[in-house]
Amino acid sequence: MTAKTFMRREVEEIPEAAQRFLTGAAPQVAVAAAAMRALDPALMVTVARGSSDHAATYLKYLVELAAGVPVASVGPSVASIYGRQLRLSGAVCLGISQSGRSPDIVEMMRSAGAGGALTLAVTNHPDSPMAAVSAHTLAMHAGEERSVAATKTFVASVLAGLALVAEWQQDDALRKAVAALPEDFAAALACDWSPLADRLARAQSLYVLGRGPGFAIANEMALKCKETSGLHAESYSAAEVLHGPAAIVQAQFPVLALGVADAALPQVIATAERLAGQGANVFLTAPGAAAGVTELPALAGLHPLVAPLVLIVTFYGFIEALARRRGLNPDTPPHLRKVTETV
Amino acid sequence: MTAKTFMRREVEEIPEAAQRFLTGAAPQVAVAAAAMRALDPALMVTVARGSSDHAATYLKYLVELAAGVPVASVGPSVASIYGRQLRLSGAVCLGISQSGRSPDIVEMMRSAGAGGALTLAVTNHPDSPMAAVSAHTLAMHAGEERSVAATKTFVASVLAGLALVAEWQQDDALRKAVAALPEDFAAALACDWSPLADRLARAQSLYVLGRGPGFAIANEMALKCKETSGLHAESYSAAEVLHGPAAIVQAQFPVLALGVADAALPQVIATAERLAGQGANVFLTAPGAAAGVTELPALAGLHPLVAPLVLIVTFYGFIEALARRRGLNPDTPPHLRKVTETV
Repeated sequence: MTAKTFMRREVEEIPEAAQRFLTGAAPQVAVAAAAMRALDPALMVTVARGSSDHAATYLKYLVELAAGVPVASVGPSVASIYGRQLRLSGAVCLGISQSGRSPDIVEMMRSAGAGGALTLAVTNHPDSPMAAVSAHTLAMHAGEERSVAATKTFVASVLAGLALVAEWQQDDALRKAVAALPEDFAAALACDWSPLADRLARAQSLYVLGRGPGFAIANEMALKCKETSGLHAESYSAAEVLHGPAAIVQAQFPVLALGVADAALPQVIATAERLAGQGANVFLTAPGAAAGVTELPALAGLHPLVAPLVLIVTFYGFIEALARRRGLNPDTPPHLRKVTETV
Repeated sequence: MTAKTFMRREVEEIPEAAQRFLTGAAPQVAVAAAAMRALDPALMVTVARGSSDHAATYLKYLVELAAGVPVASVGPSVASIYGRQLRLSGAVCLGISQSGRSPDIVEMMRSAGAGGALTLAVTNHPDSPMAAVSAHTLAMHAGEERSVAATKTFVASVLAGLALVAEWQQDDALRKAVAALPEDFAAALACDWSPLADRLARAQSLYVLGRGPGFAIANEMALKCKETSGLHAESYSAAEVLHGPAAIVQAQFPVLALGVADAALPQVIATAERLAGQGANVFLTAPGAAAGVTELPALAGLHPLVAPLVLIVTFYGFIEALARRRGLNPDTPPHLRKVTETV
């Protein structure tokens, strides 16, 4: 019997890390949410890279759907490489970085503040340079993350956004859903996706499909497939995939479709069925598809804006095991370092 | 000798289609640009899917870099599926659709107009429903496109955005660069990327890398590889690729890096060299990389905001030939139709 990987230990720690955030960061969340209510922003921009950018994509759908405020993802290179200061007066600029020290992210946050934005840093290191140049900081309280592949800090980043939006919008249903997340995460760790593992044990390519906030989770899953398991997984909006990418979906091509109980579910199911009809091996995290689509277990009855985040916890446990099954050590992906500093 | 494919004929028609747009749409461009100057928008949102969404990504970088106005890509599903109206008062909402009749795009444009945005449609069908619900329409003047894989309409979409921004900003250098594009496109068709074709004749995966507007072109190239050639190509920002995706770049993994003479070029070259150092087969559209990176020919001396668009014209000629070399007919990709109507 071998020791657990760092990644496995950190995935198992997600429920308690989430509770630490909810308890520990509540005062800062309240202050930042009050500042957002006072500002009543016409625009939010997000600044992030890698997994953190997937968290930002989640927040984009969340803010657009819950608050009706448009969200623009801004490439940090606009400031750091091209030297352009955006007009951001009256906007909120939310940066996400586990380390808080990638130079391009720090420069973009500084530039956004100088351009008139209310800046808000989400980081696991509240003493970092990103926090220093930002008006508000939400500390993740995730504890040290030793796995190169981020897991608990990704969850903490999205959780921070969910808590912030619930307070900003004073949305009691969302507040309640957020408070229940530590327990939901624990339940999600017990969901068994072994039919998917059997299919992916020797696969080379995979599509991961989602829609709305589920698309952000698809992005994160696809990245983790590459990073830990050497699997060329690519994410698509369940709408976009029919605009061209479906051309490579031939017999036995594996597809993971993320369905949650929201308004987009019928379309996600229809897409899953259509790809299965092309001969793909399609797995769906929701009931209701025709025969030929394999249902994967997932928690039912969740708020639609938190349900996709709960799926990632099941997935993290799944992909850590898949990596080992494919003969890789998820703690030491080839060619990667924990902190990637981009200029 | 077989007849030319529709795709080949349409790619060869790009220079004259571009000239038709510049001549034919100039009055509408001037009127729309004047409306944008009068509005002085704090935000632009874009609405598009598939190749058109890659054109929108190009315009995002263009507008952020040339005008300093942040640009948010809005999923049409926010209106069509989730029924949420965004707060877009004082914003410009630019929709791009060849056919102008995908129901979700039309609904998002209508919703944006109702939400207070100045709506602007770019379409090859100025009599389409999207044009009908938009305040301004820029017709592509591309002529009929019979190939399922969009080529000349993609170029026309980006060109429309370039012409609009040049007039909006009254930017003489950009105006001059735009006027020269038909001639640049003709020269680009003569560039020979056969070293890349030899490498991809039997490949299964590919990364296409770019940065700034070159990232948008990388998105479009990756889609066309899938659509026409059954090649699992995926695009990444040359910055993002080192945050995880580089893990699957092992010996002989093919990488196409788009470099143009702009501020990001040194970083693109550094990334190309690093991936070549991992054993990848890296091709770069710019000079200056170390041995181990293969240079592909590209036009020199272009305005940095038009140079990435010129690369797509060389690529379109290249990928049409690669598809046939891989035994496929680029006019009839599996499982796809010309007009994908998404709800």
